[in-house]
Amino acid sequence: MSKKIMIFPGDGIGPEIVEQAVAVLEAADRKFGLDLSFEQGLIGGASIDAHGEPLTDAELEKAGQCDAVLLGAVGGPKWDQLDRAIRPEKGLLKIRSKLGLYANLRPAILYPQLAEASSLKPDVVSGLDILIVRELTGGIYFGEPRGIRTLENGEKQGFNTYVYSESEIERIARSAFEAAQKRNGKLCSVDKANVLEVTVLWREVLDRLAPEYPDVELSHMYVDNAAMQLVRAPKQFDVMVTGNMFGDILSDAAAMLTGSIGMLPSASLNQSGFGLYEPCHGSAPDIAGRGLANPLATILSAAMMLRYSLDQGEAADAIEKAVSKVLDDGLRTADIYTEGGRKVSTAEMGAAVVAAF
Amino acid sequence: MSKKIMIFPGDGIGPEIVEQAVAVLEAADRKFGLDLSFEQGLIGGASIDAHGEPLTDAELEKAGQCDAVLLGAVGGPKWDQLDRAIRPEKGLLKIRSKLGLYANLRPAILYPQLAEASSLKPDVVSGLDILIVRELTGGIYFGEPRGIRTLENGEKQGFNTYVYSESEIERIARSAFEAAQKRNGKLCSVDKANVLEVTVLWREVLDRLAPEYPDVELSHMYVDNAAMQLVRAPKQFDVMVTGNMFGDILSDAAAMLTGSIGMLPSASLNQSGFGLYEPCHGSAPDIAGRGLANPLATILSAAMMLRYSLDQGEAADAIEKAVSKVLDDGLRTADIYTEGGRKVSTAEMGAAVVAAF
Ligand SMILES: CC(C)[C@H](C(=O)O)[C@@H](O)C(=O)O
Ligand SMILES: CC(C)[C@H](C(=O)O)[C@@H](O)C(=O)O
Repeated sequence: MSKKIMIFPGDGIGPEIVEQAVAVLEAADRKFGLDLSFEQGLIGGASIDAHGEPLTDAELEKAGQCDAVLLGAVGGPKWDQLDRAIRPEKGLLKIRSKLGLYANLRPAILYPQLAEASSLKPDVVSGLDILIVRELTGGIYFGEPRGIRTLENGEKQGFNTYVYSESEIERIARSAFEAAQKRNGKLCSVDKANVLEVTVLWREVLDRLAPEYPDVELSHMYVDNAAMQLVRAPKQFDVMVTGNMFGDILSDAAAMLTGSIGMLPSASLNQSGFGLYEPCHGSAPDIAGRGLANPLATILSAAMMLRYSLDQGEAADAIEKAVSKVLDDGLRTADIYTEGGRKVSTAEMGAAVVAAF
Repeated sequence: MSKKIMIFPGDGIGPEIVEQAVAVLEAADRKFGLDLSFEQGLIGGASIDAHGEPLTDAELEKAGQCDAVLLGAVGGPKWDQLDRAIRPEKGLLKIRSKLGLYANLRPAILYPQLAEASSLKPDVVSGLDILIVRELTGGIYFGEPRGIRTLENGEKQGFNTYVYSESEIERIARSAFEAAQKRNGKLCSVDKANVLEVTVLWREVLDRLAPEYPDVELSHMYVDNAAMQLVRAPKQFDVMVTGNMFGDILSDAAAMLTGSIGMLPSASLNQSGFGLYEPCHGSAPDIAGRGLANPLATILSAAMMLRYSLDQGEAADAIEKAVSKVLDDGLRTADIYTEGGRKVSTAEMGAAVVAAF
């Protein structure tokens, strides 16, 4: 039976990088007989322009009926002056929340071919391979009450609510323990339990579950220390798990340790393995449409999709190997270019991955 | 009239580093005729052991009647099993809040003599000099309601409230604008206005005040991007201002960029310039009492105290120059030691600073 993939190119460089990822998926389909089919959808600014909102319920429903979703990126200056309720980002928050994509997996891997790109010293980051598991549908991103009110004395007050229930913590914790089991068996849970009660509960739930995963070594770290340790000695980590807000910050910091955020994919999964796959980087409107964007993060997101949502590990491996090969061959888009490399466009990079199959 | 300084040695390495800072203050007193006097107080674990709570109201009152407070560090494994309400950290949160010390200034400076200590490449961090201005008495650290409750379905739920009023934002913003005026005129405000309403208000207040500081160039950055930019190219920043939680994370990350957190002081000020001064690092219980701790962050905190709370800029300059001189002379405590340096103890380092006066 055919596997349907919903494609949301989004804004900025989204369309051009997604085009290359789809070409790679088609090549994988030909080689491995995956029987893929594709649906196109609008999200972010592209949807605002067409429908006046960043994600329509109709598109959301279509996405939910597919087997997986591949997304480019959303946002750009064109939509910055809009009311906050209909900004491009709201489309992303809506699809994550409505499809229950609570488990956000963000690997931070340093490709040996690109070691120079890091702003850190080679010995600090060489061989870096961390997985950050971020809770994506709860916490302060979605907590109620929230808003801006006027106090009795006439001044305004802004407020948000950081909230997690045991069951929300438990399911993301299990995703993280399971990920650690498949990797090096080390899980570091990040919280601020010395100040925030919500993370006291977080820590309690992690500790309660730990005996069920005797092959995983669980540790806890305060978020401020985690930010320091990522800068000081990131290779001490294997899997890190944390809430939505801390995960947003730490996963971006971790990604930047590699110096090549144009290489990093992500997966956002629900309970049943359905997932949305997108690059870690943004829509980079400044370089959109000029063939400068690096399509590899999106191509690697497509590989994650094959592995996690479509149970096609072999095809996923093949894509990752092809990416490694083009890097070995010296092909570089502008963002990862260093002297001696062969500078290629977005489309040339995509074609090279297809050819390396 | 004599200036009274309240001394809270605290826990772990606190007493030994504070002892050296007091010796340096006494030397400054002799040289510049500052007429200083000192009061000793208990905070953190030391206070828990003596009084069963991390800071008594009596000690708090004594501190408030002094002209400034110098603090070592609090906490340690000895008190980790206590109920969260009376942990050492609560003493710190209490003194910050009760004395209204809302403006936390955390410089991240790379000493040229210690450039090698950074985990980042030399060209990325050489000459680094950032000031992070963190709001310290509001935000999610103190927001109500907070706690852990049991839901109708029997599961527990943790919750905290992230809240800021306009006046709270305005006063920390003014501290930051003023700091930027005295430095390189660049202020980057960090928020998550694409998701959190409380930071939408934050951004509005900053924008409203900006015209009053025409000599300061204000920019805004999302916190995830700020974490990335600190890793990628930290020298783009001059002054950064943000709320309590983001400030906790970003200031520690920024401090770690220098590789020598044992060198970094901090000031926490109230409306009238009264302040608490403490090193950025923690109580390091693992090395306490062994003469291994670096007293320079506390000594530099004492210099900040002379400058900001006691209006003794000349004496502050002299201390900073003396610190620079001992570094030039190759003196190194264990944390900043590299080959070719002269390894010294906590007390030897303190004595060398006094001698360099
Ligand atoms: C665009 C924004 C709402 C989003 C987030 O904060 O989750 C982004 O930063 C991310 O990490 O995917
Ligand atoms: C000890 C802790 C409560 C404190 C904080 O989070 O403010 C510390 O991390 C700091 O930054 O001074």
